[in-house]
Amino acid sequence: MTKTIEILVESDPAQGLGLQIEGDAVSSRCRAAGIAVSVTTNTDPARLAEAARSADVIISNHKFDIGRVKETAPSFAWLQVTSAGVEAYLKTLPDDVILTNASGVHAEKGAEFILASVLMLNYRIPYFASQKVQRAWTPVFESVVRGKTATILGVGAIGGAAVPLLKARGMRVIGVTSRGTTEAPVDACYRLDQISTVLPKTDFLISTLPLTPETEGRIGGEALDLLPHGAGVVVAGRAKVLDYGALAARLESGRLSGAVLDVFPEEPVPADHQIWSVRNLVMTPHCSVDDHAGYIDRCLDIFMDNLPRFLAGEPMRNVVRPEKGY
Amino acid sequence: MTKTIEILVESDPAQGLGLQIEGDAVSSRCRAAGIAVSVTTNTDPARLAEAARSADVIISNHKFDIGRVKETAPSFAWLQVTSAGVEAYLKTLPDDVILTNASGVHAEKGAEFILASVLMLNYRIPYFASQKVQRAWTPVFESVVRGKTATILGVGAIGGAAVPLLKARGMRVIGVTSRGTTEAPVDACYRLDQISTVLPKTDFLISTLPLTPETEGRIGGEALDLLPHGAGVVVAGRAKVLDYGALAARLESGRLSGAVLDVFPEEPVPADHQIWSVRNLVMTPHCSVDDHAGYIDRCLDIFMDNLPRFLAGEPMRNVVRPEKGY
Repeated sequence: MTKTIEILVESDPAQGLGLQIEGDAVSSRCRAAGIAVSVTTNTDPARLAEAARSADVIISNHKFDIGRVKETAPSFAWLQVTSAGVEAYLKTLPDDVILTNASGVHAEKGAEFILASVLMLNYRIPYFASQKVQRAWTPVFESVVRGKTATILGVGAIGGAAVPLLKARGMRVIGVTSRGTTEAPVDACYRLDQISTVLPKTDFLISTLPLTPETEGRIGGEALDLLPHGAGVVVAGRAKVLDYGALAARLESGRLSGAVLDVFPEEPVPADHQIWSVRNLVMTPHCSVDDHAGYIDRCLDIFMDNLPRFLAGEPMRNVVRPEKGY
Repeated sequence: MTKTIEILVESDPAQGLGLQIEGDAVSSRCRAAGIAVSVTTNTDPARLAEAARSADVIISNHKFDIGRVKETAPSFAWLQVTSAGVEAYLKTLPDDVILTNASGVHAEKGAEFILASVLMLNYRIPYFASQKVQRAWTPVFESVVRGKTATILGVGAIGGAAVPLLKARGMRVIGVTSRGTTEAPVDACYRLDQISTVLPKTDFLISTLPLTPETEGRIGGEALDLLPHGAGVVVAGRAKVLDYGALAARLESGRLSGAVLDVFPEEPVPADHQIWSVRNLVMTPHCSVDDHAGYIDRCLDIFMDNLPRFLAGEPMRNVVRPEKGY
């Protein structure tokens, strides 16, 4: 007889309405899949260690010290989180706990937002937003995006899903990944250490890169200066991959024609931060890639797909590789 | 022996660099098509009547009093203009001059801008642009456009070309035309006098309507109030179809979530006009639909397609019907 697996659903109310995980939803999905489980729900993060004592698996919507919980939860072997970015989890991840993330859950929205951002940059929306504040009527007649080049740094779930959308508009799409390969239908793919050859032919630079030792601070002023005059920049991954100060200077000077930023080194951005006043910049407050509608359902899709694999000791999807950082 | 047709190329330098028509281009395209023509170019609008005396055909990049020119140019029978909107030409168009416009030349760019605008409205860019000025961090987690409804008022060349782009994003697209029919692949089509049944189910209202007695002022406060709370509005045709004062009030109050306007009742919009300060509004200075790259070439494509038809007395493309106004 198989041991009944114990699942702790860790749902912090502070994460907001759309990000609450319901224990009942997990129970009923497991029942429908014919998998015997015992589900406990904890909504008080301060009581997590206590609630986790006999847990085999934790599904969590918030960050916590995984190593410390593991100390008093010896059978805890798998953590499913509801975010795609996991750098905060990795700091405390013991070797004997599998971490799976929500990568791919944001793919449709993230890809659509990248399409929106490239079109916005092409039609100079960041510039016209600044001109509106100045009450200045200065038409710019841009041609369509057909034939222009978009370079996507980090062709993961979101970047990969954006490729066909951009190609459908007639664009040339270049991928940049750590290994120089991707399964997405890009026109060309380079390694991250080859970006200096890619940037000069890039009209729109899109970063969906995760934050890792390899990517942190990777795109500074020197890299931005390799872009053609008037190029545009989109950041929909992690902010600290780019030097925002260097980016802001090039937006102010007109060296770059515009940027669309959904993520920032400090969030929420403080009201007195100078980035609010940077010209030729569209800012969205870290909400344009995350899709809360049905979000947790889609996270549970990943979890339910993995649960039989976990029980059978088979390879799982969305496993975070600590040595890579994502 | 066929009479050699006389073409006057009327190219006003004041219309800007991208809108100049070169007589040589017309000559060489006619030669390539094996059509004997005599081409004269005039770049001084004040001398138009004199230059037109023996012309059979005029290709013009600017407005003029067609009736007055016709008085001293008895064989003048066809005017090709380089704009899609022709309400200013219709006022002086005699019955015996055929007017053809540039409708369709803007289709690719106009359709792409409509796609961009709908995505911007969905991702609340007009709102976030206002919030940036206020230095306010207020995330809004919108779902993708899939399943939402775009209603296009005026399914002509631009509106029609936008339909497949919006449907490719999984949207429901409703067309509204004067006759209630269209060849574009919409999900449903209604007559303009039926809009009150369409507006309540519209998430994004897009007007590409020409300005005619039937359309002028058609979308006032009453019509806007039939839209669902939080709907968005795009205007890429003629501004006077909508009541911009009523629209502005509903953007300020939050009754509508945002608007993208490329056209205005008075252009350029004066610096002291109150519309510059309206919240939740993206303004582009009448440049997002017009595509100057290769623009005149594409106008000449229409002209060259029509020239043999004109000579043979056959039905022509893009003929403006004065009774309809477009």
